[in-house]
Amino acid sequence: MLDLPFLPFCILLGGLGFVCVAFVSAWCQHWRGGFALDGSAQTFNWHPVLMVTGMVVLYGAAALVYRLPPTWSGPKLPWKVLHGTLALAAFVLAVLGLVAVFRFHNDHGTPNMYSLHSWLGLVTVLLFSCQWLAGFSAFLLPWAPAWLRTLYKPVHIFFGSTILMLSVASCMSGINEKLFFSLKNGTTEYKRLPAEAVFANTLGLLILLFGVLVLGALARPSWKRPDADSPDSRQVAGTR
Amino acid sequence: MLDLPFLPFCILLGGLGFVCVAFVSAWCQHWRGGFALDGSAQTFNWHPVLMVTGMVVLYGAAALVYRLPPTWSGPKLPWKVLHGTLALAAFVLAVLGLVAVFRFHNDHGTPNMYSLHSWLGLVTVLLFSCQWLAGFSAFLLPWAPAWLRTLYKPVHIFFGSTILMLSVASCMSGINEKLFFSLKNGTTEYKRLPAEAVFANTLGLLILLFGVLVLGALARPSWKRPDADSPDSRQVAGTR
Repeated sequence: MLDLPFLPFCILLGGLGFVCVAFVSAWCQHWRGGFALDGSAQTFNWHPVLMVTGMVVLYGAAALVYRLPPTWSGPKLPWKVLHGTLALAAFVLAVLGLVAVFRFHNDHGTPNMYSLHSWLGLVTVLLFSCQWLAGFSAFLLPWAPAWLRTLYKPVHIFFGSTILMLSVASCMSGINEKLFFSLKNGTTEYKRLPAEAVFANTLGLLILLFGVLVLGALARPSWKRPDADSPDSRQVAGTR
Repeated sequence: MLDLPFLPFCILLGGLGFVCVAFVSAWCQHWRGGFALDGSAQTFNWHPVLMVTGMVVLYGAAALVYRLPPTWSGPKLPWKVLHGTLALAAFVLAVLGLVAVFRFHNDHGTPNMYSLHSWLGLVTVLLFSCQWLAGFSAFLLPWAPAWLRTLYKPVHIFFGSTILMLSVASCMSGINEKLFFSLKNGTTEYKRLPAEAVFANTLGLLILLFGVLVLGALARPSWKRPDADSPDSRQVAGTR
């Protein structure tokens, strides 16, 4: 592949992540009535904004921490803390995003967890919680043995990409579902492709592009830490 | 990771792929009225069956050809032909699947290409057509120069996984959308989670599992051809 440097790519990706958050916020603010905390449809609107911000953009940022060249030398602990903190922030936003949709459903007598979107989303967040806890236990707690870290590292890396893939798939099905719900009788139907539909479909494709670029960056051999395939995942004792 | 041998994994994965095709066929046959070629709702039913069979199961099989240990030695050309043929069969099924949904829409006066599912699906099939044509031109036509093959190979590999990821995301949004369409007034609503909804949601999770297992198998270092990272992608002249 062309030898694109990582930092300009990161800046472009950060810009795209910002555009994704701006698009999902603008969709909810301009077409879906804005935001509230009272259990109304405006409470639901926190769901897409928090999920895209947490499970896609912040999650993507957390995933790419070890692609920053300064992380390749010196003490690993500060970078591990940054990686874990960004992932924790993503997880907190995801939980708040789930609270928003459960609150909205409960206040409207709508059952929870019936659609494939909800099953997929819950699988994604549950996997993410296991991933975070296992990563914290294996890589940040000082008493995890080196053999466990070595064994678990490729699993953590694989599920890191998988969970992002599931997040993006959840966003696609969620945006699609929301547009079918919102754009029906009494408004311009989805199938007439009104401005809102074009805008939210475009949001879907931008989220997809963000996810694919993060997965591409993670897979790119020349952006990996030179010793990434070595079995050494231990912290240097003096750096804790 | 645990040292699972590739062939038993392949048999399990083949079984899972068969279950996915059986589930999507049973859904359309048992709950959606079966199959026809007359432009009716039964014509639409070919769409999910052909897409899951082509863009997920056959595509997954094509992607894994080079993980078979017999492909690692001897002439490459027969395996390239097998890889390309499986991918072409997947592509033909995908095109027929698109024909089914366009025919159904046109016969019912429903606009085409308005939902995010349709945008995502079309992006996936268009990327796949580019991938197939570029792969055929670079790796099967004898006059492609070695430097071009070397340059293009990692791009082809990356888009191979990406297109599968997009296929799975398309299936998720499509099954979700179809259930919202079908399970409404006059039948048991989706949100009451009738047997059909549980069955089709389960189909969605099985497709997801199949996709994740294929991506995991592709990413697993010990299952790659030992020289996979070498720049040599040339055919041996005498083996054509």
